[in-house]
Amino acid sequence: MAVGDRLTDDSRDWDTGADGTVRMAVVGLGGYAVNRALPALSAADYCEPTVAVSGSPDTAADVRAEYDLDRVLDYDGYHDGEATDAYDAVYVATPPALHLAAVETAARLDKHVCCEKPMAATVEGAERMRAACRDAGVTLAVAYRMQFDPVVRRVRELCREGTLGEVVQFHGSISIRLRTAWGGALDTWRTDRDLAGGGALPDLGVYPLNTARFLHDAPADAVQGSTTTTDPAFGSVDQHVAYTLGFADGATGSFSASFDAVPESHFQVLGTEGRVFVDGAFVPRGQRRVRADLDGERVDREGSGVDEIEETFAAFGHAVLTGRETVATADDGLADMRAMAAVYESDETGARVGL
Amino acid sequence: MAVGDRLTDDSRDWDTGADGTVRMAVVGLGGYAVNRALPALSAADYCEPTVAVSGSPDTAADVRAEYDLDRVLDYDGYHDGEATDAYDAVYVATPPALHLAAVETAARLDKHVCCEKPMAATVEGAERMRAACRDAGVTLAVAYRMQFDPVVRRVRELCREGTLGEVVQFHGSISIRLRTAWGGALDTWRTDRDLAGGGALPDLGVYPLNTARFLHDAPADAVQGSTTTTDPAFGSVDQHVAYTLGFADGATGSFSASFDAVPESHFQVLGTEGRVFVDGAFVPRGQRRVRADLDGERVDREGSGVDEIEETFAAFGHAVLTGRETVATADDGLADMRAMAAVYESDETGARVGL
Repeated sequence: MAVGDRLTDDSRDWDTGADGTVRMAVVGLGGYAVNRALPALSAADYCEPTVAVSGSPDTAADVRAEYDLDRVLDYDGYHDGEATDAYDAVYVATPPALHLAAVETAARLDKHVCCEKPMAATVEGAERMRAACRDAGVTLAVAYRMQFDPVVRRVRELCREGTLGEVVQFHGSISIRLRTAWGGALDTWRTDRDLAGGGALPDLGVYPLNTARFLHDAPADAVQGSTTTTDPAFGSVDQHVAYTLGFADGATGSFSASFDAVPESHFQVLGTEGRVFVDGAFVPRGQRRVRADLDGERVDREGSGVDEIEETFAAFGHAVLTGRETVATADDGLADMRAMAAVYESDETGARVGL
Repeated sequence: MAVGDRLTDDSRDWDTGADGTVRMAVVGLGGYAVNRALPALSAADYCEPTVAVSGSPDTAADVRAEYDLDRVLDYDGYHDGEATDAYDAVYVATPPALHLAAVETAARLDKHVCCEKPMAATVEGAERMRAACRDAGVTLAVAYRMQFDPVVRRVRELCREGTLGEVVQFHGSISIRLRTAWGGALDTWRTDRDLAGGGALPDLGVYPLNTARFLHDAPADAVQGSTTTTDPAFGSVDQHVAYTLGFADGATGSFSASFDAVPESHFQVLGTEGRVFVDGAFVPRGQRRVRADLDGERVDREGSGVDEIEETFAAFGHAVLTGRETVATADDGLADMRAMAAVYESDETGARVGL
């Protein structure tokens, strides 16, 4: 296959086949869960939504009807262990600070976990989540959807095969206009540091961070970073963030994220022999435009359009059914939590922070 | 004019008309001067090459024949003031550490100066150059060609008119493969810290730095940066650099440069209401591909292809003839020198460095 055409190849390199379906309880019915995750989970191979947990009876009833769910629970019911015969695993989509309680309950109930990013509101929370699931012997995966985006998986193959030569720099940016996104209110959990763990960095900046770490073969070992909040409406969280990730082999990532800019995202892997630039890099549902220099050829392609959220749920179901660890692990999520804490420390002190 | 079409408008906003032609002595006949600058200078309005100064008699003879020059000089002849009746101004294209001597001589000879970037090898050298020209009452301009690229000038207008809303982030990257560029040798002045003042940062990284400063209304006030040199062939200079520029209003620039990656450059201005992304942002001779979100419309354009090097010489000639200060000033060049010194300091200490 010509190297350019590989970028539109959406075949699954992780799918060994599996029997059965993982029945999922969706914990938290916010905008992302309802509009993005549930449609994908419902369409995905190897899993299906059977239960929803929400503090809003109306939303729960709507979702139950739309997806023909077996049960809906409120949070008390979930933590009390109701309806545990109706689901095998949970998808945690609450605000980050509430992930810990949801995951500890799942572990106690012997349920596998697919947890939204960022993994938690604090490094300590993420550590406790990892320990709880390890002790219970259940899978804890972080729903880093980019890891199952076909374009990103192809780029990882090209990196590993040396098609880009030595990878020397990553570039990435992601922004949304929070005042017009998700219904248009700024006073949500996203601007509440206690609930979110931060602002643009954990909500958006984690995408280029995790994607670069996913693609690169060397560990990240240092960060420098700066945050900016000029508008009081953003409360105690970072409205904008710019940070540099250093890898042990000398490669760097120059990344930024913003809660208050026109929606845009791009990502580039730059190597000694080639590069891949992805426009719309982190847009949900696979809307990528790829420009690459590979084997001396200029390549322009649209991605295959495969919904990477659906792929992520399928991969999670596959992992649970087969026992193969094909999804982002708790260690992966924790590495990002530590890197983001280091960005905030660097912002405070001005210093480069080792990881 | 539709906002998208403005991005291909190459009309000059600085040209008030002028009588006469500035006769230029080209000081230094390296690859850039011979292959890029001389053809542009020869074609440009308001100036013409009449003299060349070179340590290489063969190159000087070739250039003299090709451009029908009045005189060629060696460096002794230049510094001794030979042929001063044959030129009105000098274009300094020596390695950066030699700019100072060439400019001091020009000032002594009462000649205006257009000096290549980076302005000098050290902040102190740049300060001395500025003082020498100020004391002599001659113009000292830095040949930041991007400032006269029509696309960049249009983007600056859009920034100033508020079409992008508030500008919050700049993104920029520039790379060349030095081992195959400029004839393919690594042991040139570009890898000699004393001659070049640094590596990828002053040779390439100054482009996004200067362009962002040119576009933005607030002063840059801080940098964080990291350099990497893994290959001993790059001697004492930075093979790669990644740095973040902070502006007083909270905007940031996430920039990188590399001497050892496939040739690539891009630049983005991201605002609350719009953005402009330029692929091939720093490629010589106006080969820009522009993608923008402006007034809610997605815009895709090729730049007009106007040679921004030619424009830069024309603007310099115009400035000398009219006394209008339309070109990048010594203050501008010195601001970049200070910012780059701060990047190296941040690299050494790990700390954010104020400007």
